[in-house]
Amino acid sequence: MTDLMEKTLDATTIYDGRIVRLEVLNVELPDGRKVRREVARHCQAVAILARRPDGKFIFVRQYRKPIDAAILEIIAGCMEAGEEPEVSARREVAEETGYDVVKMKKLTSIVSSPGFCDEILHLFYAELTPRAHAQDQDPDENVYAVEFTEEEITQLILGGEISDAKTIAAWGYYQLARQNRLLE
Amino acid sequence: MTDLMEKTLDATTIYDGRIVRLEVLNVELPDGRKVRREVARHCQAVAILARRPDGKFIFVRQYRKPIDAAILEIIAGCMEAGEEPEVSARREVAEETGYDVVKMKKLTSIVSSPGFCDEILHLFYAELTPRAHAQDQDPDENVYAVEFTEEEITQLILGGEISDAKTIAAWGYYQLARQNRLLE
Repeated sequence: MTDLMEKTLDATTIYDGRIVRLEVLNVELPDGRKVRREVARHCQAVAILARRPDGKFIFVRQYRKPIDAAILEIIAGCMEAGEEPEVSARREVAEETGYDVVKMKKLTSIVSSPGFCDEILHLFYAELTPRAHAQDQDPDENVYAVEFTEEEITQLILGGEISDAKTIAAWGYYQLARQNRLLE
Repeated sequence: MTDLMEKTLDATTIYDGRIVRLEVLNVELPDGRKVRREVARHCQAVAILARRPDGKFIFVRQYRKPIDAAILEIIAGCMEAGEEPEVSARREVAEETGYDVVKMKKLTSIVSSPGFCDEILHLFYAELTPRAHAQDQDPDENVYAVEFTEEEITQLILGGEISDAKTIAAWGYYQLARQNRLLE
């Protein structure tokens, strides 16, 4: 779709922080007009829908300062430099829940807020070991693992108790993939 | 979940732009440790899964500078000051596609990237008039309406051609709601 492309004329870094870098870009639209775009640069990340052998899924409850609430999400985290998405996914599962991954399948990749942010999330489905060892969290995270049956997750989404976009997108994709026989 | 709460000690505005305001917060964790949080403040927004009487859904293709690609999304946009979500949703449908809404139902509200951004999106399902009048877009937007059948949307999601998180979340929610007889 080259006819829609916005050409970058110049970019200025406003702030370069720990998890976000903010840039202001001057761009040229296809019709020649010039406009300003604010872009938040964020890590590439992974998010994992993780299932135990007993059929329960492991979610995490985590306090999210931007919305001042503790919410339910699937396991997620930033990829480290040079790390492949699947390696990141296995590491995040172990760190946040203490479970190891037995089998893993890529679902899809999503963009979380493409109007102003470049964040890409690689979504995985993972099957876990029956038991967990100790967690190994980042020191400034407060992450608590919780487990739900499939029916509980569907009802938490329908009732609005699960509001996290990547979590609902992963669950929706997982259901579509199973209905279309792309996953067991 | 007060036991997880992170208390704000102070907040500094780094940049206050057109669509994003970046703040750096010093917060106190439940165990007393102090850490820094970067928070992007964004508008509250609406996003609409819009269906014509012939069963086709109206999506938009739009160039998104942060990811330098033209992607497929459901209709979406920021709420204006003092506007109710449903009013915003009807306005965005008319502006981006030229269709009017006949019937509308709230699906749920989602957070797009709660690790660093406060963006909330209110998701709606809308039924449209059969024909469109002229669009009325924001001057710096390049938005093109496209239409898909239900089966086409499912295949575009499964094949990775639709990567937008709110779009996949809305589609997943819509399917779950119908399977649970919460929508016709």
